[in-house]
Amino acid sequence: MASEERIRATYWLHCPPSDASREAEELCLEQTVEVPGELVKEGWIRDHIVGRIERCRQYQGFFEVEVSFSPDITACTLTGLLNVLYGNISLKKGIYLSALSLPGSFVSSFQGPRFGAHGVRDILGVHGRPLLAAPLKPMGKSPQELGALCYELACGGIDLIKDDHGITDQSFSPFRERVKECIAAVRRAEEATGRRVLYFPCVNSDFEDMERHIRWAVRQGVGGLLISPFITGLAFMKYLAASRFAGVPLMAHPALTGSFFQGPGQGIDQAVLLGTLMRLAGADLVIYPNFCGRFPFTGPQCLSINKALSEPLFGIKEALPVPAGGMSLENIPALRGFYGDEVVFLVGSSLFLRRASLRENASYFLSLVKKEGEGSKELRPPLTKP
Amino acid sequence: MASEERIRATYWLHCPPSDASREAEELCLEQTVEVPGELVKEGWIRDHIVGRIERCRQYQGFFEVEVSFSPDITACTLTGLLNVLYGNISLKKGIYLSALSLPGSFVSSFQGPRFGAHGVRDILGVHGRPLLAAPLKPMGKSPQELGALCYELACGGIDLIKDDHGITDQSFSPFRERVKECIAAVRRAEEATGRRVLYFPCVNSDFEDMERHIRWAVRQGVGGLLISPFITGLAFMKYLAASRFAGVPLMAHPALTGSFFQGPGQGIDQAVLLGTLMRLAGADLVIYPNFCGRFPFTGPQCLSINKALSEPLFGIKEALPVPAGGMSLENIPALRGFYGDEVVFLVGSSLFLRRASLRENASYFLSLVKKEGEGSKELRPPLTKP
Repeated sequence: MASEERIRATYWLHCPPSDASREAEELCLEQTVEVPGELVKEGWIRDHIVGRIERCRQYQGFFEVEVSFSPDITACTLTGLLNVLYGNISLKKGIYLSALSLPGSFVSSFQGPRFGAHGVRDILGVHGRPLLAAPLKPMGKSPQELGALCYELACGGIDLIKDDHGITDQSFSPFRERVKECIAAVRRAEEATGRRVLYFPCVNSDFEDMERHIRWAVRQGVGGLLISPFITGLAFMKYLAASRFAGVPLMAHPALTGSFFQGPGQGIDQAVLLGTLMRLAGADLVIYPNFCGRFPFTGPQCLSINKALSEPLFGIKEALPVPAGGMSLENIPALRGFYGDEVVFLVGSSLFLRRASLRENASYFLSLVKKEGEGSKELRPPLTKP
Repeated sequence: MASEERIRATYWLHCPPSDASREAEELCLEQTVEVPGELVKEGWIRDHIVGRIERCRQYQGFFEVEVSFSPDITACTLTGLLNVLYGNISLKKGIYLSALSLPGSFVSSFQGPRFGAHGVRDILGVHGRPLLAAPLKPMGKSPQELGALCYELACGGIDLIKDDHGITDQSFSPFRERVKECIAAVRRAEEATGRRVLYFPCVNSDFEDMERHIRWAVRQGVGGLLISPFITGLAFMKYLAASRFAGVPLMAHPALTGSFFQGPGQGIDQAVLLGTLMRLAGADLVIYPNFCGRFPFTGPQCLSINKALSEPLFGIKEALPVPAGGMSLENIPALRGFYGDEVVFLVGSSLFLRRASLRENASYFLSLVKKEGEGSKELRPPLTKP
């Protein structure tokens, strides 16, 4: 198989120089055959199944090793890819997956986002500016109360309204009641303003209920679905994105992914996990922790995710980046300067805290992205509280 | 609601003493309402939805905070529990989930393992000694070759034979062909020896195929199913454990969980994740990295998992611990001394490397657990290679 038709994963190995080549070789075995090298010295399994060290170079304090894998060993599945990339070695120490390059022959087995960035914009009829998103919160409000918030946000000019990802199907906010209220609120607002709004209910649930909830919600006319793929299973989102019954945009939430991003000593690079893998798994929109918010991502980390969501990937559609988590209205002009227009700004508490009505706050938010140059371009101190 | 009817999670916060109470309060908000405290100062949401600090004490360098949550906010789902325990705060730094205590009212929504430790032993008719497990490997062997290995292992005395967890439905080892070969091998061996053997095919796959594979495999008569819940989604295993169509024991593999276990500075305690959560999600057998193998778990970490798999949990059946990952035959007597009899020893490479036939090696393995006191009780240097 031509080398360019292989999956290429770059790892950082934190080990003494004398151990580097042995550690790299053991990684190639651990992620594939799971036997010592002496049991696969030569032959088809050694040549075709065992990972291959393509390149190894030393940096200060660690080694960067590029390993290639045959796509065949993943059975061209997302689950197979996850396992080959980081299944067993996640359990070791000092191995970081820093980059991933997938060959066209592998990617062609995936559909990726059904709508993608352009598709979502086409549904909304909004181009040339950042999209605006806002959450319905806090958990504990009744479906009627959340529906009322939804109406105000929609009238004010928010494009995408999502449930907080912890709001699921609780006794105090049953899924169906909430979805009905919010769809009705969005319809009323659309009639009043003539502007399209998409409501994304949170569909996270145990398996027994999730598909049933989704089928019902899509029939009711939800604008999209919010899902936390590392809570429900990443492969389930891929299944939704390719299914007939869930033909609406999917917004992915990063809950439970944080332990992978604790630094370059161990884990998976945020651009690989929240960028490439989320996109491959069919997310049309990917929420991640914005820098200068209450989570410790940096600006360059955020841009690396955006790049992975939009760079050419063998015909897989681009996904929209959704920085969130302590986004402040004050920072929107500066953030627009930083991110450009191909982004969704998800603002929560800052919308609810501003001293005007929620509808006025939403309108103000819209005004910030409608007029180039309005507002301070300087980043203000972050919102550090939830 | 009575305090004992709440979910109790213990976190270690790594922060300066002056920040501790603010950090604890923000955790309670972040995991529930996701708004600053000033938006939920009082009332039903503050009392019922926001997490409650039950206890906070300082240790050297960190704070131990016990937080309680109302089970209602999880909608009594596994996905809801995962999200409340560690969804958003996984994305922060310096927060470690060290312990979990669940109330009976919450646990009663879960079935847990269908068979449990006793059920698996009853199927096998083996009591009073550790069970023996072995993998079929390496990836790349044909279904016929794997079937032949399966026969030898079964004749030699292995109780539970599983696919390596990377072997799924590859072109070089199609799932159905492999399952047919291995079931036939097990049947022949059972007839020859009169001893029951269970074969666990690896069912990891993308959603489109997984349930179909499982339904088919169970109809063919597999002894159990091997699944990596953090690859496929933990809730999917729970669904299987409660389903009508997958009425065989489930063996859970820890692939992709390692980033949670990088130390007490961040992540989730192994006894919570591989113990309580795997058991709650219905694993009858839980594989984890043995100490003195090639993964960095310690002996006390392993025992903490065993405890979580077997301690009383409101009628939820006990699950069997399966230490694995560089288990050496030489160490089996000592490991039996360490773990006792309520354990499954999963030995891979050491069985394949010993200089005798595979069947003889399996018989030797069985002899080590049949006779009390045989072999050295001293732990030998670990097998560090895959």
